Amino acid sequence: MKIEGRNAVLELLKTDKDIDKIMLLKGAEGSLGRIFAMARQKNVRVQFADAKVLDKESETGRAQGVIAFVSEYEYADFSELCAPKEGARFVVVCDGVEDVHNLGSILRVAECAGADGVIIPKNKSAQVTGAVVRISEGAANHIKVARVPGVNYAVDELKKSGFWVYALEADGENIYDCDLTGDIALVVGGENSGVAALTKKKCDKVLSLPLKGKVNSLNASVALGIAAYEAVRQRK
Amino acid sequence: MKIEGRNAVLELLKTDKDIDKIMLLKGAEGSLGRIFAMARQKNVRVQFADAKVLDKESETGRAQGVIAFVSEYEYADFSELCAPKEGARFVVVCDGVEDVHNLGSILRVAECAGADGVIIPKNKSAQVTGAVVRISEGAANHIKVARVPGVNYAVDELKKSGFWVYALEADGENIYDCDLTGDIALVVGGENSGVAALTKKKCDKVLSLPLKGKVNSLNASVALGIAAYEAVRQRK
Repeated sequence: MKIEGRNAVLELLKTDKDIDKIMLLKGAEGSLGRIFAMARQKNVRVQFADAKVLDKESETGRAQGVIAFVSEYEYADFSELCAPKEGARFVVVCDGVEDVHNLGSILRVAECAGADGVIIPKNKSAQVTGAVVRISEGAANHIKVARVPGVNYAVDELKKSGFWVYALEADGENIYDCDLTGDIALVVGGENSGVAALTKKKCDKVLSLPLKGKVNSLNASVALGIAAYEAVRQRK
Repeated sequence: MKIEGRNAVLELLKTDKDIDKIMLLKGAEGSLGRIFAMARQKNVRVQFADAKVLDKESETGRAQGVIAFVSEYEYADFSELCAPKEGARFVVVCDGVEDVHNLGSILRVAECAGADGVIIPKNKSAQVTGAVVRISEGAANHIKVARVPGVNYAVDELKKSGFWVYALEADGENIYDCDLTGDIALVVGGENSGVAALTKKKCDKVLSLPLKGKVNSLNASVALGIAAYEAVRQRK
């Protein structure tokens, strides 16, 4: 898998993930120089290349002078995210998030809000590709992502293991009236149809953000950000 | 100006803005049929076209079968946003938001959170184009957008007219310790350099979201969403 872009590679270097090599624009300076220094320190092989070669290797067209080559993305075990831990657990479940931009943004928000992990289904969902890692600004390297056969299976298992599972949708209870200090799982819907009807039924509650304007929905990662930070605030 | 895409045109039709004509894919059905019905009701001229003609007219390549032709975007007066009103005032100031996706997302979030308007500088900033209206899912048609010669000018004037002006940046006071129930202006920075140093100094305070992970920043529209909804919560 290729990880492209300065921030994404810098974040990758901060983890202890195996990096096969880093391809760097000749005459590296600024943040590229910092990447070079960090790669040297970690004994990662650095290969200098000119802009043409980098362009040819780039999958996103936005390599910004650096591409890291790593093994395929390592997903976490779903059971890891269900395991008991000190303090309240917090996971995010994606239901039908098929757009790589949305998945990348969701991983970034979840990581910033301190979530323990993100759960995605194996089908009808974007998977963690190099592009998703880049869009997440490297957050995908720091947060656990687990794959499940289906979202309903995940909801059932999370409930069994003691989570309060809440769907984020338009037709529910005001989120500011809900206690988010316990073990919680927030289910966010995809760009097309939101959280599936059956999944909503399985959830303990449907939670909504009050909409004060005339446009009737927020983008999935923004809605998740607002909900996740309400949990951060309540747990302060 | 062309407004493209089903949601954006539906939202446009809900306003009382002048629409020159709407170009619709032949054999309109589903949400396109709804657009046709609403256009007829409002006496807006509808022109049917086949996919080729629509593709040719489209500026974004994502017309989804409908393009509305309207006069240039009508900006609001900055003084309107500074005017006293019943209840607490709330505006958003963009400092160097040059990416149309970011501006569109910011307008969408600001509208959903019930902001009175968004202020953008005339230079070094994305302006409200058809693409921005589309990305905002039509929110740009409902929220006031005012242009100012510069962000520092706006901050000075807002303070004079009684606003608390807060920059959203990484190095400030925890936002959850701040009272957001008064007249407030939130200044959000652009994708490259954030809120300018001088602007930050002029603001009453710098407010930060607690970051619980290793990635050191949230996307501008997500950060604004979290901050704006904290104001919504406090004002409940």
